[in-house]
Amino acid sequence: MKIVTVSREFGSGGRELGKRVADRLGWAYYDREIITAIAEKSDMDEAYVARLLEQGVKSHYPLTFRHTFSYGAMAQQNTTRILIAQHKVMQELAARGEDCVIVGRGADVLLKEHNPMNLFVYADLEARMQRCRERAEAGEQLTDRELERKIKQVDNGRAKYRQLLTGAPWGRKESYHLCVNTTGQDIKALSGWIEGYVRYWFGGDGQ
Amino acid sequence: MKIVTVSREFGSGGRELGKRVADRLGWAYYDREIITAIAEKSDMDEAYVARLLEQGVKSHYPLTFRHTFSYGAMAQQNTTRILIAQHKVMQELAARGEDCVIVGRGADVLLKEHNPMNLFVYADLEARMQRCRERAEAGEQLTDRELERKIKQVDNGRAKYRQLLTGAPWGRKESYHLCVNTTGQDIKALSGWIEGYVRYWFGGDGQ
Repeated sequence: MKIVTVSREFGSGGRELGKRVADRLGWAYYDREIITAIAEKSDMDEAYVARLLEQGVKSHYPLTFRHTFSYGAMAQQNTTRILIAQHKVMQELAARGEDCVIVGRGADVLLKEHNPMNLFVYADLEARMQRCRERAEAGEQLTDRELERKIKQVDNGRAKYRQLLTGAPWGRKESYHLCVNTTGQDIKALSGWIEGYVRYWFGGDGQ
Repeated sequence: MKIVTVSREFGSGGRELGKRVADRLGWAYYDREIITAIAEKSDMDEAYVARLLEQGVKSHYPLTFRHTFSYGAMAQQNTTRILIAQHKVMQELAARGEDCVIVGRGADVLLKEHNPMNLFVYADLEARMQRCRERAEAGEQLTDRELERKIKQVDNGRAKYRQLLTGAPWGRKESYHLCVNTTGQDIKALSGWIEGYVRYWFGGDGQ
């Protein structure tokens, strides 16, 4: 079984890159599907789980849980449940034995025993802001300042979540096999090259 | 003109990787040659220049200069002369208009206006120690502790030199287009894939 994990800065195009690489390789691709599965496992509201995984744990911040509000200890309990559920979901994915690309969700750490190839995708803040603007949903009109704050918030959440999961910092190049800067890059073109790297990594036939 | 710069942690195999990529591409390769040219330009002892570039500036440490000793202010002056000379050498290289791979020497910064592709090569400390051992010259028998200290010293020197040159930290992934972890990798096999990336980068024909 071959597993590629993709960690990424918000707005870097890492998600699109992961999807394209999976398509090129003909491998399974997991992203939101994992969240859904986790939500089912933990019997929680999917949007809540998604937000918790994206934004990290803010124990003194009110969080919607089954449309009620919870604080502190309850959020902490929920986080623990989600982490356990996530671990189970990852183990189930691994048990399937499929070659796959997994974006985010701490897969690089949770599936470490399966020797995944771990990719980190990043870009300059300006490039990430531009990408976010291009992909903004109708009605989502943020000022530059608001957008910058949002990007930093999401990254900060991912960093906190990773810290919680692993005790290790997020985004340090030492944790990954390859770090790709997508600033000014065409993700589609780049995906062909990453595909080559994955083939090289797992079989040495990427030359 | 296409320029690839290679920055690397000591013992990561970055130098070998740069040389192999240059050979595969049929491009010029610069490393020690640059030091020689700089030494000629600045009318300094080559070993001195090499050591200064490798170890960074230690202004309170005695340094050999034309076989005499100099301290503080003189070392500072020499550093300035070397930086100016290095800048000139880089400009001359660029003026040749050759496609080339340049390892170290701050080329990514000094040649920024020529839009080089900037590669950073790194590895786990253990892997770097192993590589150093394999390449140790006869008679160079360091304990693990001494070797670890040496690796950290060289990296620290490179970091200081870069700081001096650019005011920016060394080894942060944000400064590079691609960061490759060579831990457990075969440099020769890896070079084929990096060649592909360079071709993709400059011409989009690496697919």
